[in-house]
Amino acid sequence: MSTHPLSLTAPPALPARGLRIIPLGGLGEIGRNMTVFEHKGKLLVIDCGLLFPKDIQPGINVILPDFSILRDRLDDIEAIVLTHGHEDHIGAVPYLLKERGDIPVIASKLTLAFVGAKFQEHRLHPPVVEVKEGERRSVGPFDLEFLAVNHSIPDGLAIGIRTEAGLVVHTGDFKMDQFPLDNRLTDLPGFARLGDEGIDLLLIDSTNAVVPGFTTPEADIGPAIDTVFRTAPRRIIVSSFASHVHRIQQVIDAAVRHNRKVAFVGRSMVRNMGMAAELGYLHVPKGLLVDVKALERMKDDKVVLICTGSQGEPMAALARMANREHTIRIGEGDTVLLASSVIPGNENSIYRVINGLTRWGANVVHKANAKVHVSGHASAGELVYCYNVMRPTNVIPVHGEWRHLTVNADLAVRTGISKDRVLVVEDGIVVDLVDGRATVVGRVPADYVLVDGMTVGGDAAEAMEDRRLLAEDGAITVLGILNTETGRLAEPVEFISRGFNHDADWAANAAQVIDEAMVAATRNNALDGAAVERIFSESVTRWMQRKYRRNPVITAVVVDA
Amino acid sequence: MSTHPLSLTAPPALPARGLRIIPLGGLGEIGRNMTVFEHKGKLLVIDCGLLFPKDIQPGINVILPDFSILRDRLDDIEAIVLTHGHEDHIGAVPYLLKERGDIPVIASKLTLAFVGAKFQEHRLHPPVVEVKEGERRSVGPFDLEFLAVNHSIPDGLAIGIRTEAGLVVHTGDFKMDQFPLDNRLTDLPGFARLGDEGIDLLLIDSTNAVVPGFTTPEADIGPAIDTVFRTAPRRIIVSSFASHVHRIQQVIDAAVRHNRKVAFVGRSMVRNMGMAAELGYLHVPKGLLVDVKALERMKDDKVVLICTGSQGEPMAALARMANREHTIRIGEGDTVLLASSVIPGNENSIYRVINGLTRWGANVVHKANAKVHVSGHASAGELVYCYNVMRPTNVIPVHGEWRHLTVNADLAVRTGISKDRVLVVEDGIVVDLVDGRATVVGRVPADYVLVDGMTVGGDAAEAMEDRRLLAEDGAITVLGILNTETGRLAEPVEFISRGFNHDADWAANAAQVIDEAMVAATRNNALDGAAVERIFSESVTRWMQRKYRRNPVITAVVVDA
Repeated sequence: MSTHPLSLTAPPALPARGLRIIPLGGLGEIGRNMTVFEHKGKLLVIDCGLLFPKDIQPGINVILPDFSILRDRLDDIEAIVLTHGHEDHIGAVPYLLKERGDIPVIASKLTLAFVGAKFQEHRLHPPVVEVKEGERRSVGPFDLEFLAVNHSIPDGLAIGIRTEAGLVVHTGDFKMDQFPLDNRLTDLPGFARLGDEGIDLLLIDSTNAVVPGFTTPEADIGPAIDTVFRTAPRRIIVSSFASHVHRIQQVIDAAVRHNRKVAFVGRSMVRNMGMAAELGYLHVPKGLLVDVKALERMKDDKVVLICTGSQGEPMAALARMANREHTIRIGEGDTVLLASSVIPGNENSIYRVINGLTRWGANVVHKANAKVHVSGHASAGELVYCYNVMRPTNVIPVHGEWRHLTVNADLAVRTGISKDRVLVVEDGIVVDLVDGRATVVGRVPADYVLVDGMTVGGDAAEAMEDRRLLAEDGAITVLGILNTETGRLAEPVEFISRGFNHDADWAANAAQVIDEAMVAATRNNALDGAAVERIFSESVTRWMQRKYRRNPVITAVVVDA
Repeated sequence: MSTHPLSLTAPPALPARGLRIIPLGGLGEIGRNMTVFEHKGKLLVIDCGLLFPKDIQPGINVILPDFSILRDRLDDIEAIVLTHGHEDHIGAVPYLLKERGDIPVIASKLTLAFVGAKFQEHRLHPPVVEVKEGERRSVGPFDLEFLAVNHSIPDGLAIGIRTEAGLVVHTGDFKMDQFPLDNRLTDLPGFARLGDEGIDLLLIDSTNAVVPGFTTPEADIGPAIDTVFRTAPRRIIVSSFASHVHRIQQVIDAAVRHNRKVAFVGRSMVRNMGMAAELGYLHVPKGLLVDVKALERMKDDKVVLICTGSQGEPMAALARMANREHTIRIGEGDTVLLASSVIPGNENSIYRVINGLTRWGANVVHKANAKVHVSGHASAGELVYCYNVMRPTNVIPVHGEWRHLTVNADLAVRTGISKDRVLVVEDGIVVDLVDGRATVVGRVPADYVLVDGMTVGGDAAEAMEDRRLLAEDGAITVLGILNTETGRLAEPVEFISRGFNHDADWAANAAQVIDEAMVAATRNNALDGAAVERIFSESVTRWMQRKYRRNPVITAVVVDA
């Protein structure tokens, strides 16, 4: 495999016969959610998703891809094509449409329904084009073909892109479940046909490249769900992702078999399952669903709640149940089924919820003690099938961190693809496909754009750094009144502290430290307010480090008397 | 299994023939590190460890057990017995000795060496008693017997405690590796002999109760380590826990076989391995160790570095290598071996390090892609052996979160122990063993004591809450000068913000919000400073919520002009 050099500059002009590929919030350490293609002066955007913040980004709501290279060229965008309806692939579409509202959005029926809910919320009305597997559609110089793939949400698509530069395939997120619940197989014959035609470049999902073997079929968790339903003495509470239609279908089927009524809990669960049922992706027998309030009048062993919160989100129904802050009061004999993955970084939150539920007497069935979850992504064995069936000339592993991308690249090389044709690149790296060869040609801006409350972008990096400091050590405001005539303090300094936890005498001692620093500094000359503020900050900071091994954020305020 | 009621009060007096057991920082959601036994007015402390903070405890260094029930009875403590040398079992001993410096400390040779290093650092000189497996020793009314157990550190002990109330066994942390590297088996015949005698109460490690089957022998990771050494083209950098002597031994053995020199990196690694070698627990051939500086003059394929930082700790050598902030500059061809677990909550930090190392071209071998780690704790299968061999009358599962304790309790019940004799309790719950029956009798204070910089305890809970707020939304100081005669502001308010990231106009807009609030409030009456500070805080807080959906911590300062 071949990684790009570290010092890259703006790319040269794209040759007329070339296709340019730019991952933006699409690869790299945290990215996976947008790729821009350029050909003959026109642009095509595949996916436009958002990310959720990690522990090092306190206070951030969501993270958007960087649209800056698109900003001067909004009119060149032919379309946004969405591979499937997960947030990390569709969540940023409204933000791009705010820059230009009439970019056509092309996707399958369910994906359009999920992104359409966002359009409504944001009052956007882009032209939408519904496509399905097997169809072809030209947008500007891009000739698109759509192929079925299965994943942890129905109606996923891989995209073939034909241009004068050759044939590119983007798998989207996928696995190759050979027994999918909706019988919609990943289109391996289609992959083979495109392989026969000659795939010049393959962009391929890397999420599970580090997992050996094959992802277990979705249907294989049916027995574990059935066991829960057969043995649960009282209520059953199921928590899963609000987009995992097939997982919810298995729960609903079990509820029907075991004669229990079902209530959906949580805004996104209610809305998504409503849409999925209306469009025919979720099959709910008449009379099965009840309102959550109706449960109170029903026997405990006749009900199932299906709710959000499987990642331990503190405001979701499940966490509130674990803390006894929810109207559903968990007790001895209740069974909670977490039919979901543990997204790395969420372990602490999830285990807090599991411990809480267990504490109240619930039996918690989850991934670690029963086969109640399988991944939505292809494992190494499946990826190898893809390489051997598609036989691409060039490969860019996508959708993963460095540790995933490099392992996926190794798999490609093991199937016989030439090492220098497998490009491991990060967000903003520009790859040109010219004369059948993909080459790294430069780098464009590809920062992540942080959404912080109502503010998009701005100087978030500095705010982030300050917040981490504040979280570690708290904040102290030091207030002094300066006699401008004498250049000395007119009154003793005052302290106001937050998040700083120390002995009772600290303020008196700190005041003395400041007094001494002031005496030393004013021996020869009178000081102005700015100089006094500096003395406050520096003397207190030094003293706090020495005395408490602490670095609170010091705000010095000096007022003239 | 039987969980204790939620509303419990101080326990009644202990009957003369009874033994009292109090877990303190010993069980419950995050605890595992101390248990107090009382008999005939005397106390015995088993383990006295500390915990490391979680994400919800920003800025905290370590967490201690609550010694408050011991404080009035320090002279009654007969001894502190340590089961093994891990931080979560020995780290708080110096803090207890600061309350009474001459409590005898009883432990095995290696455990005493590790805790002894702390005594030196803290200038403590308690009497120490070295014991080993097979020995018995009486301290006051407690007749102790020590049994060998294996774990992820050598020289671990289980403790038998005989009193007039019966025989109690505390397993400490253990597993039942049948092929331990030092041939020191967990003493199953000893467990059986005590079982024959009649075990009235068993306290047993729950960490891996949720893991089915049997923990893989330590020796079985040898081949994976050997493969790394056989195939690594350049440097090998191994990261593991600084106390995992047997793991390091396997690395050293591989280095000898493959003709590489070894350098230890990191203060705790250098110190602990020095002690382990000196005491005969680590076998290092003469001439194998070199100083890290000497490596620069050696060929890359002739060296191994063994360093700390396997949990992604940002200041440890490994993280600094991943960020190219270390003199060892990771590059193409280097191999990094993480021979360690992923402690829940550390995933983000660990993956950041792995991605960083991979980004520079290193091949990172870790738990997820090779068999380079096994746990130090007994899995469910081993626990079941213990129950069947020991046949205890009463059981308290220890060392785990609720999700572990309850599963371990279920295992006990499945081996035939009566449900109401298996007590799942949390820190501070008092259990009395009287006439062969263990019963929950009350609750004592068992808060966690946070060490925050140099400050132990104090009002850490409030500081914690403030820090979480500061981390989410930052801090704003609002400064106003009040004309005390008119009760109005003499000058426009000023703002100083940290960690608050918003549009350029926010301060001007916030000033206007304050002006309007002041006009409304002062229409009828003049205000004093405290009232004006309240108006500042309330009006800005309300406006920030509405306008930015943000809750920065507001510090209002009003100075009289």
